[in-house]
Amino acid sequence: MSHQTVFAAELAWPEYKRRVSGGDCPILLPLGSMEQHGHHMPMHVDVLLPTEFARRAATEIGALVAPPFTYGYKSHTKSGGGNHLPGTTSLDGATLVNALRDVIREFVRHGARNLCIVNGHFENSWFIVEGIDLALRELKWAGITDVKIVVLSYWDFVHEEAIAKLYPDGFLGWDIEHGGVLETSLMLSLYPEFVSLQDAVEHAPARFPPYDVYPANPDWTPPSGTLSSPLGATIEKGELLLSVCTEGIVSALRKEFALPADAAESVTREARTTLVEQG
Amino acid sequence: MSHQTVFAAELAWPEYKRRVSGGDCPILLPLGSMEQHGHHMPMHVDVLLPTEFARRAATEIGALVAPPFTYGYKSHTKSGGGNHLPGTTSLDGATLVNALRDVIREFVRHGARNLCIVNGHFENSWFIVEGIDLALRELKWAGITDVKIVVLSYWDFVHEEAIAKLYPDGFLGWDIEHGGVLETSLMLSLYPEFVSLQDAVEHAPARFPPYDVYPANPDWTPPSGTLSSPLGATIEKGELLLSVCTEGIVSALRKEFALPADAAESVTREARTTLVEQG
Amino acid sequence: MSHQTVFAAELAWPEYKRRVSGGDCPILLPLGSMEQHGHHMPMHVDVLLPTEFARRAATEIGALVAPPFTYGYKSHTKSGGGNHLPGTTSLDGATLVNALRDVIREFVRHGARNLCIVNGHFENSWFIVEGIDLALRELKWAGITDVKIVVLSYWDFVHEEAIAKLYPDGFLGWDIEHGGVLETSLMLSLYPEFVSLQDAVEHAPARFPPYDVYPANPDWTPPSGTLSSPLGATIEKGELLLSVCTEGIVSALRKEFALPADAAESVTREARTTLVEQG
Amino acid sequence: MSHQTVFAAELAWPEYKRRVSGGDCPILLPLGSMEQHGHHMPMHVDVLLPTEFARRAATEIGALVAPPFTYGYKSHTKSGGGNHLPGTTSLDGATLVNALRDVIREFVRHGARNLCIVNGHFENSWFIVEGIDLALRELKWAGITDVKIVVLSYWDFVHEEAIAKLYPDGFLGWDIEHGGVLETSLMLSLYPEFVSLQDAVEHAPARFPPYDVYPANPDWTPPSGTLSSPLGATIEKGELLLSVCTEGIVSALRKEFALPADAAESVTREARTTLVEQG
Amino acid sequence: MSHQTVFAAELAWPEYKRRVSGGDCPILLPLGSMEQHGHHMPMHVDVLLPTEFARRAATEIGALVAPPFTYGYKSHTKSGGGNHLPGTTSLDGATLVNALRDVIREFVRHGARNLCIVNGHFENSWFIVEGIDLALRELKWAGITDVKIVVLSYWDFVHEEAIAKLYPDGFLGWDIEHGGVLETSLMLSLYPEFVSLQDAVEHAPARFPPYDVYPANPDWTPPSGTLSSPLGATIEKGELLLSVCTEGIVSALRKEFALPADAAESVTREARTTLVEQG
Amino acid sequence: MSHQTVFAAELAWPEYKRRVSGGDCPILLPLGSMEQHGHHMPMHVDVLLPTEFARRAATEIGALVAPPFTYGYKSHTKSGGGNHLPGTTSLDGATLVNALRDVIREFVRHGARNLCIVNGHFENSWFIVEGIDLALRELKWAGITDVKIVVLSYWDFVHEEAIAKLYPDGFLGWDIEHGGVLETSLMLSLYPEFVSLQDAVEHAPARFPPYDVYPANPDWTPPSGTLSSPLGATIEKGELLLSVCTEGIVSALRKEFALPADAAESVTREARTTLVEQG
Repeated sequence: MSHQTVFAAELAWPEYKRRVSGGDCPILLPLGSMEQHGHHMPMHVDVLLPTEFARRAATEIGALVAPPFTYGYKSHTKSGGGNHLPGTTSLDGATLVNALRDVIREFVRHGARNLCIVNGHFENSWFIVEGIDLALRELKWAGITDVKIVVLSYWDFVHEEAIAKLYPDGFLGWDIEHGGVLETSLMLSLYPEFVSLQDAVEHAPARFPPYDVYPANPDWTPPSGTLSSPLGATIEKGELLLSVCTEGIVSALRKEFALPADAAESVTREARTTLVEQG
Repeated sequence: MSHQTVFAAELAWPEYKRRVSGGDCPILLPLGSMEQHGHHMPMHVDVLLPTEFARRAATEIGALVAPPFTYGYKSHTKSGGGNHLPGTTSLDGATLVNALRDVIREFVRHGARNLCIVNGHFENSWFIVEGIDLALRELKWAGITDVKIVVLSYWDFVHEEAIAKLYPDGFLGWDIEHGGVLETSLMLSLYPEFVSLQDAVEHAPARFPPYDVYPANPDWTPPSGTLSSPLGATIEKGELLLSVCTEGIVSALRKEFALPADAAESVTREARTTLVEQG
Repeated sequence: MSHQTVFAAELAWPEYKRRVSGGDCPILLPLGSMEQHGHHMPMHVDVLLPTEFARRAATEIGALVAPPFTYGYKSHTKSGGGNHLPGTTSLDGATLVNALRDVIREFVRHGARNLCIVNGHFENSWFIVEGIDLALRELKWAGITDVKIVVLSYWDFVHEEAIAKLYPDGFLGWDIEHGGVLETSLMLSLYPEFVSLQDAVEHAPARFPPYDVYPANPDWTPPSGTLSSPLGATIEKGELLLSVCTEGIVSALRKEFALPADAAESVTREARTTLVEQG
Repeated sequence: MSHQTVFAAELAWPEYKRRVSGGDCPILLPLGSMEQHGHHMPMHVDVLLPTEFARRAATEIGALVAPPFTYGYKSHTKSGGGNHLPGTTSLDGATLVNALRDVIREFVRHGARNLCIVNGHFENSWFIVEGIDLALRELKWAGITDVKIVVLSYWDFVHEEAIAKLYPDGFLGWDIEHGGVLETSLMLSLYPEFVSLQDAVEHAPARFPPYDVYPANPDWTPPSGTLSSPLGATIEKGELLLSVCTEGIVSALRKEFALPADAAESVTREARTTLVEQG
Repeated sequence: MSHQTVFAAELAWPEYKRRVSGGDCPILLPLGSMEQHGHHMPMHVDVLLPTEFARRAATEIGALVAPPFTYGYKSHTKSGGGNHLPGTTSLDGATLVNALRDVIREFVRHGARNLCIVNGHFENSWFIVEGIDLALRELKWAGITDVKIVVLSYWDFVHEEAIAKLYPDGFLGWDIEHGGVLETSLMLSLYPEFVSLQDAVEHAPARFPPYDVYPANPDWTPPSGTLSSPLGATIEKGELLLSVCTEGIVSALRKEFALPADAAESVTREARTTLVEQG
Repeated sequence: MSHQTVFAAELAWPEYKRRVSGGDCPILLPLGSMEQHGHHMPMHVDVLLPTEFARRAATEIGALVAPPFTYGYKSHTKSGGGNHLPGTTSLDGATLVNALRDVIREFVRHGARNLCIVNGHFENSWFIVEGIDLALRELKWAGITDVKIVVLSYWDFVHEEAIAKLYPDGFLGWDIEHGGVLETSLMLSLYPEFVSLQDAVEHAPARFPPYDVYPANPDWTPPSGTLSSPLGATIEKGELLLSVCTEGIVSALRKEFALPADAAESVTREARTTLVEQG
């Protein structure tokens, strides 16, 4: 069992306590989903990607990554194909809200004061807002008012310059990037064993009317379940995305949590010392 | 992306649909927790172990393993050391109940009719009962009455003969096996990289009065957080446990889901054919 | 009491029943909020505008407008300035979800099968999705599966051509239109008595980092509470918006509810006949 | 936009803040319903009337009127005809309770300490009690204990002397005044355009057994939906009611909120000064 | 164990099943509270009285009495003195609603189709309405639509003639009968061991303004906790009340459940036969 | 009305207040169920027994016994025969949790600081844990942190020595003691009128597989509804159990609540003095 891991659940409690109880160590919590991602990708893309971004950021800033939420809010036609699709397995809004509220309350009980929700599934967004609001309200009742929570979705850190490289033929919006170039490129560079590009279905970008209908109209979603073609995905794009988003996330967390630029290093150094002492 | 995986979330939806929509393919859902397990083990033991038992059973019977619940109900002093301990990160009862209800409803929507909750955290037990009851009630309202759900905790399959081998000096009950010989042996045989036996703390088995007090009395829990000494754990015991429990689980599921003895094989054969056809 | 009104609550029940019980008459439900809209506008902008769009659309298609929701979900820093601002008065997510579920269930009990949620407050969006999902689930349990619900936010019908006219210096996104040109122009053309442009505060468009923080950082919101300057608002722009959005909404509802182009007229004719008969 | 309005949502936030943040300005919250009121009246009677009483009282005492609740609790056979009737559109009890709890919490966040629930729909009564109890409990947890909430239903201020004038042939109780002389007279004097007395149905006062049955027995309710004949309603009675109830409400609020008799005047004076300064 | 008891919980299940599964045997469910009743009476008056009325009615009509609810909704100043008083121990509204919904669902599962809620605590009234509404809704989802539920409060059966005898000096309304002549007379005649009239406090009837305030103003409640003087209570009045209310309840249930006048007798006869057969 | 009773609800409020407001007097709360207990016992066994143990313990230690919960959580196949059985009448988990939370909050409001949940129904166990956790959390928010709650099930106090006497042929575990020797012996010694041993059904102890299935498989439960034969029950065993368990409970409560050995006596003495003063 390594003391250097950034995954909180891989630690024994004495080491976790040592890192967290003082309040300085940020906890990054990946929120995913089990959701179809087309013919060419598995259904835990939205868990794998935010977890990896959290791992990279945590390594840089000396944070810990909490176990991810493996299920998320209901897939929406315009951003995930719709919750009527096979394989997509979702929680009611209140369930997600309460689960997030519960674990925030627990991490704060451990001493954590800086938390970051690393979202990988667009549809989680507003239930994250509510879960945090309820958690902060309860913490206030408990007399705790020094908690700060950052919420981010990794794709929001892709800047204009990167977009120009990723989508040379024009960018149509993150909303239809479900199972498209963004996610497929990232998966190709990180988990190629989970991508079978030969099964990818090419199709024109999904176009939707400016409103929604319920129950979902299955005809609105391309038969593949993706909302834009993944065929432009490459490992190189994946690496660009990894680099751009990780940098953005690290920079945001350093700023918001007032972390020194060499935080991770100093933590590692401290951890090493401890290990020596224990050995 | 392999079609042979038993992990549902590693499949693309067309293959998931092919397997699940007919109702025959059981879905096994591991339920864990983030809970301290002493000085010598990490905090996701209750996720890793049921997931591995589910994987082994699914491989044998041609089932799929759903993404595990990574958080569970509050740790209890007498079976997990107590929820006041650092690192232990728990959900409210209603949150766990509703999360389970939600995903059962979804798997049934996909066509599944045989489900199995593979529990790795004792404290989840009664909230599993309630989550299933609410799910079955709602499914009944939806006109679906042919769902069967098996609930099991892997340790309940350790028979007398195995107990005699595992605990030659006498067995004191599963309740105080938290972080003890059972879990440590299994982790040693499956995930030795997550066990540091040199950090294990020897202590007499925890003894509790025949009642509980709240708020938890921290003095009741051994300082290590384990409830019995892990020092008797060995890889061999872990392998015995793996073999005994897997056999028990497989046999139970074959019986309850009326599966043929060679189910897995036939599924694999079918899957292979499909792959050839797709190729 | 006029039988020609499109406001459902202005009817006596016999006339309401006559129109609704057959299932053909759509019910349009405006969802608003009580939310600060800068120094120059009142706090019920998000109620007034969707109610007026609903009224116009209902008049065109022979629908009824239900009483609006006068409170909505918590204001978000990036789309409404934030819920910490004075005057903004919001509901918890679950409250909004359940209120919407409840009234949908009731309108369906009356016979309505075509409903439209006319949203005027961006932050309501995902709780509308959940409220509808819960309502449709319960209706399914009750054996009712022929309900269709359209959800729309009026600004989504502003097409590219209109945007070019409205924002000659470039459009920065609906997200920062809170209290800006869009809403102010509409209010100027519809409710000039509620706009005091002389109190409007000019400021550069709000710019936000690609993530959120909680508790909200008050420094992120322009002191006025608006997210872009309302000073470019004009009555003409308001009239353009009214025309473009109403047309879009009417066209969407005609399509989704399979309404004839002259629905309203025929309804009016029928109503008149009835009045004569009653007189 | 007038600064003299008593409707809180018609103010821009700076003026709202100026009035409310100090805690002295009472907030009056009308609670209504969408409920059938016979053949001769519309379905928002229970919104219009308490809103108007709140407006009159607010004008007198220098208070603000919050946006009304446009939906209320389920109509009861003996006081509203029953919730099975067409047009009546109601909330579950918990929804109403939570909505009230939410907005109370918000007004107190703004600084308000004196609130008044002005109820127009009998069936709301006990859910108002619960909503307030939950709100005060949460506020207590937040350390706020100086909130005072008055709850009133306007008809409770009709004194014996007025009853003698209103019901010269004997008064049978407020319970069966649903759609009868009380409400119809008030509507005639305030909103004659919403009353069509020619459609009013005369019938003997409803008589009920001393118990209830569920599901509601439709035969218990007069076919018109009213519980007593509205035919005795007159504008004069409406004016008497307006005067008697407004006086009673004003007097109650002055007493409970320890307001000076000339509160409104002084507020107006202060507001005028401010306007001059701003102008 | 007697088969003649009317208390359902005193039966073994085979006899309960024999009586209930056919649907004809009504189940009467007493709902009480733990609430102060002045210096001279205990705090379970609201449990004892409806249970006794249920027992008497059940004996007459061949029904069964379910275990009473021993806690109820929060005491109200104007009908129970207020929930701030010592000893009064109450449930949140939602708790009472859900508990009632749950047990109704269970009795219907057993086969019961005729239920009667026998209320002994005024404040329970509207949460009973909601609990029943939720239960009937769920039962409808389950396809069960032939359930009939009567709700009654025993005092509502005291007719004018009896009131004249009970209150020769004038009747001031049931609302202030808390701990007064009504309840004390009944307790004197049924449970004299629980009444100590010598401790009763005489005071003028409580008078309240026509509105409520929260938090409750303790000065509004007479210091004794009763709302009118119990000193006029007598055993004779208790016997009159017992007779009048029981007759009223029996007559109501016979009518609503379409029971023959000799139902109890025939049931007893049948039970006797069965006993002989078993003996 | 005796001031010596230990049943809280049998007291008038002034005496209850005198005893409870100081915080020293423990409140014991019996939690039962309405559950079938075989052919030979009634369905309120789980209410009667914990109430009697509470009464005996309260008498010894000078505590009060609160009104019991007459309904409990759903019967489980392996410990109560299953919730599909006729007569068994259960609450949803959340209902039980919230009811317990509510009354704990109330007793603490009265001044109580030492509470004991005396459980008589195994299936309640984990919902008791959750109810207490929610109550203590809310009390913490209210600033109250000196509450101590003991939870016990009376059978857990039966020590090895007693077990040897009770089960001379070997003890098979409390789980299958449903309706067996334990409960029947206690009922025989306490409530012989509720036991008809001649109706008891002899059968081999129930044996279950090491997992559960849902919906419950009715074939798993012995047709009698008991899980082991009650035929070995005797009054003598009942008296032994009464004595052993009461001693254990009293000793536990004395220790946990730091009560002097003669607590009850001194309380009685104090009460007597007061009575004299009042007389």
